[in-house]
Amino acid sequence: MSGADLIVSRIGQLVNPASDRVARGGEAGRLRVERDACIAARDGRICYVGPESGLGSACRPAPGAREIDAGGAVALPGFVDAHTHLPFAGTRQDEFRLKLQGASYQEIAAAGGGIRSTVRRTREIGAGELLAACRLRLDRMLLSGTTTAEAKSGYGLDAETELKQLRALRGLAGSHPLEVVPTFMGAHEIPDEFRGRNRDYLEHLLREVLPQVRREGLAEFVDIFCEDGYFSYAEAEAYLAAAAAMGFRLKVHADEFTSNGAGELAARLGALSAEHLIAVSDDEIAALAASDTACVLLPGVSFFLRLGRYAPARKILDAGGIVALGSDFNPGSSMISSMLFVFHLAVFQLGLTIEQALNAATINAAYAVGRQERVGSLAVGKDLDLLLLDVPDYPYLAYHPGIDPLRLALKSGRVVVRDRRRAEE
Amino acid sequence: MSGADLIVSRIGQLVNPASDRVARGGEAGRLRVERDACIAARDGRICYVGPESGLGSACRPAPGAREIDAGGAVALPGFVDAHTHLPFAGTRQDEFRLKLQGASYQEIAAAGGGIRSTVRRTREIGAGELLAACRLRLDRMLLSGTTTAEAKSGYGLDAETELKQLRALRGLAGSHPLEVVPTFMGAHEIPDEFRGRNRDYLEHLLREVLPQVRREGLAEFVDIFCEDGYFSYAEAEAYLAAAAAMGFRLKVHADEFTSNGAGELAARLGALSAEHLIAVSDDEIAALAASDTACVLLPGVSFFLRLGRYAPARKILDAGGIVALGSDFNPGSSMISSMLFVFHLAVFQLGLTIEQALNAATINAAYAVGRQERVGSLAVGKDLDLLLLDVPDYPYLAYHPGIDPLRLALKSGRVVVRDRRRAEE
Repeated sequence: MSGADLIVSRIGQLVNPASDRVARGGEAGRLRVERDACIAARDGRICYVGPESGLGSACRPAPGAREIDAGGAVALPGFVDAHTHLPFAGTRQDEFRLKLQGASYQEIAAAGGGIRSTVRRTREIGAGELLAACRLRLDRMLLSGTTTAEAKSGYGLDAETELKQLRALRGLAGSHPLEVVPTFMGAHEIPDEFRGRNRDYLEHLLREVLPQVRREGLAEFVDIFCEDGYFSYAEAEAYLAAAAAMGFRLKVHADEFTSNGAGELAARLGALSAEHLIAVSDDEIAALAASDTACVLLPGVSFFLRLGRYAPARKILDAGGIVALGSDFNPGSSMISSMLFVFHLAVFQLGLTIEQALNAATINAAYAVGRQERVGSLAVGKDLDLLLLDVPDYPYLAYHPGIDPLRLALKSGRVVVRDRRRAEE
Repeated sequence: MSGADLIVSRIGQLVNPASDRVARGGEAGRLRVERDACIAARDGRICYVGPESGLGSACRPAPGAREIDAGGAVALPGFVDAHTHLPFAGTRQDEFRLKLQGASYQEIAAAGGGIRSTVRRTREIGAGELLAACRLRLDRMLLSGTTTAEAKSGYGLDAETELKQLRALRGLAGSHPLEVVPTFMGAHEIPDEFRGRNRDYLEHLLREVLPQVRREGLAEFVDIFCEDGYFSYAEAEAYLAAAAAMGFRLKVHADEFTSNGAGELAARLGALSAEHLIAVSDDEIAALAASDTACVLLPGVSFFLRLGRYAPARKILDAGGIVALGSDFNPGSSMISSMLFVFHLAVFQLGLTIEQALNAATINAAYAVGRQERVGSLAVGKDLDLLLLDVPDYPYLAYHPGIDPLRLALKSGRVVVRDRRRAEE
């Protein structure tokens, strides 16, 4: 058996989430911190974590093994972004000004803007151009410490474009180191062709689109926007049950602007996640906390839309729920691709403790995208997805917002970001 | 006469504030935008701004002139940070956790934390170590686009340490490209030696410290923290009048947590700026708007302390006032050194338009630190303090928070930041 081919030595503070599996409620308030540690990996997978003195016996370095000297830096697992709408075309800067002036998300949608304006452009863009746009966005995500991200289709709303989006995500798998977890979200809006016929549209997705998605293995999850003006509780229930019967795992856009029971629905159907939850009710919180459904909170939306209110994160934790974080990166309601920025919003706006926010951005987000066995913590057997940070300790990461602390990022043991940016004199 | 020694060519969008002098009220809502421009400079000072076709006649490039190809990037004047407490020792991460849990600034100060805990450490630190700490902080500021920053003493509260702080600022002038504008703020807190004897302490500053500051030419401005629990309106009035009589220009920490008339005082005494103003009254807004006193707003404090309220920026603009921005970088109430981050808070939390925020972070901040003749816009005769940004247009800078757009920064025509940081594959 061959030895380790990569050693990351002289880690000043190695910071891991509360556990190597999902942390709920109070447990999510702590971290595991080791001083003066090292990590060894073989073929991109961790084979040792601990003091350097223990390295030899557990996972002997092979001749010619590469060594990365962390120089006392803080090490964290790579961030997992549990919710993005990555494969879109164009921006929505025109609407952005209206939003800053106070127009609501629903008002803009009613005026022909919103999701449907991105749908028009995403239908027009060529597959190669879409892939190229996604690659640049993933580069920016890597630079903010994200090494795994969920990504939803849903800017096509027709078979051809939805498949184009999902195939772009598959194209990324072979051409970009950031790992993308694909979700089918054809039920993101009602396309003009089906306006007023929501059930027909969902039936169309179930009969014409999802079978093809399954044949090509293009998505792991099915998600739906269950919200006033989009899909109702009853429509979502029938659609999700049918998608589950086809073998897809479930996610739900729930209670983003108004509470309609979608959070409870997610819990009842055993969805892996309910996402947004800004308007979630106390009853729904109780249902979610009693389930294994992760609450994926997206503070970027509240910030970007200037809503003045955030999801009740601490209430969910106090009830024993699972809190994870995502950026909701999309051109309309959260043009935020940085999980570091989301981490700051979680601490300063959502009211999470530093430890809760780090759990939510690592192991719990990994759980929410079905990847906790492989990523979300630095543990033997998991992928070596590692951030080295130029800060004195992990709380400093929250304490000094607006700096770029990332010195090095590894994805599956491969260097994907190396900081060479410096002030010159 | 020699020609230009530096040409920045192929600027896709050159963005300047509303004017090359301070913009107040409605005027601060616009920018001047040129497409396909270039800038030429000689000895670090701008000698031409305009289309490339006009370059030859106005400011002919000298043989061997350096050319920087902007490659279609967006160009902005370097940010001016109108308010920092740069020369401090240590951090206050211990307090930071208490603040996140809801302890007030005043409660922490009453428990022996707050400004006085930084005073203890700043008294202890060696001059060389203080200078080194400041240099690292300025590096980080440069990386966020700040090319000029005001910096206050006020963590000494005794002659020796206040002078040590100001001498550190002077030391930076010879060893760091970011330009620092020094302010004496001995009246930042009441030191233990003078506890309960505010007037004696101010008298001490006026008799024992300020004369030495003036002899060495160590500060341009005098500032005072006029706030409940610190210095009263009457104390501030007498102190500021005496400092003005000694030849110092005035700044006032006014209405940060409670309204006590300090904003009106600043206007009445002709202070160049009133700073904070979270709690400013409508009467004071009227007085400030009728004066030439800039309102330096510091949204980082509201964000960092989770106050849930921000200075009434739009009210001040509607009244015709001058709005400028600063970071208030300090270890207690705003560990935020990035003016790009402050710009985002100004747009998303203070409610400024993108244009108002850019005026406030450039020309109006330059005015507030007495530098509008030299910096704050890209104009012939001013220093070439320039940012090249990797964004399609200037509104994108607001639209996509959390990315690092800075490709190149020039200070007085010298390259001080060059981006070589990339995702690797």
